[in-house]
Amino acid sequence: MRAVQDSYPDAWAHCFGCGRLNEQGYHLRSYWDGEETVARFVPRPYHVAIPGFVNGGLLASLVDCHATASASAFAARAAGVDLEREESRRFVTASLRVDYLHPTPLGPELVIRGASGPISGRKVVVHVTLSAPSEVTVRGEVVCVELPETMKPGHPLGA
Amino acid sequence: MRAVQDSYPDAWAHCFGCGRLNEQGYHLRSYWDGEETVARFVPRPYHVAIPGFVNGGLLASLVDCHATASASAFAARAAGVDLEREESRRFVTASLRVDYLHPTPLGPELVIRGASGPISGRKVVVHVTLSAPSEVTVRGEVVCVELPETMKPGHPLGA
Repeated sequence: MRAVQDSYPDAWAHCFGCGRLNEQGYHLRSYWDGEETVARFVPRPYHVAIPGFVNGGLLASLVDCHATASASAFAARAAGVDLEREESRRFVTASLRVDYLHPTPLGPELVIRGASGPISGRKVVVHVTLSAPSEVTVRGEVVCVELPETMKPGHPLGA
Repeated sequence: MRAVQDSYPDAWAHCFGCGRLNEQGYHLRSYWDGEETVARFVPRPYHVAIPGFVNGGLLASLVDCHATASASAFAARAAGVDLEREESRRFVTASLRVDYLHPTPLGPELVIRGASGPISGRKVVVHVTLSAPSEVTVRGEVVCVELPETMKPGHPLGA
């Protein structure tokens, strides 16, 4: 199975969090897992907050990137598009809410899951949990919107 | 003037986003600016989202670290503590809300400002804006809580 991020067109595959073409990035990869999506990530020792625990900014970043990939997956499923063979629509984040329920231990693999909330037009809401190793330590709710014209290459504001 | 982060005890100065003792971190530094706090940051070229724009996870991380430092500053001010000479109480994030109002251009220095919301007991709410270069592109609301006992060194869950 290829990752959702592998279905992004090259022009939009540079994201620091999950772009396959970003050499210094985190290369988060999100997959279908039944009705949900899942990604796994092992933080580096320097991704620390207070010693022993994962930095909250990194956790927000993982929630964010997994949510936008999940939005692509859920939008594709709703439209009957098979991301194994077709390119995906690319989503970006309009708003991100992250609740840190418990400190997340630094060391174990983190498991990030996404479930679909409402889909309407260009907007997909994604519910995210992050577990380490078995306890949910972080919950996220992310409003994702399809990439606006102003962010596409060739637009005066774009690259 | 020393940064708020310079008033953190060494044991809690390892944060990936703003710890002075984290060699691979971002070293965000937050200062008083009148009644508010301010930090400045220039993203690296690889902190990209869609080409031309800053990664949303990094933006969330900057909002997060500036908010927890601001919480230390606002709590100190409320208690009459001078962070130029004394150590600060260390705050962590309970919940983070980030609204991406406009795409944030990659290149210019980002200016992150914090204003105090309600302070009650161990909790400080911080309102954050991020501008690049003059337009506010991101708004954040962060609920910060004083470092819980379970995250302190020596506790079974801690380092």
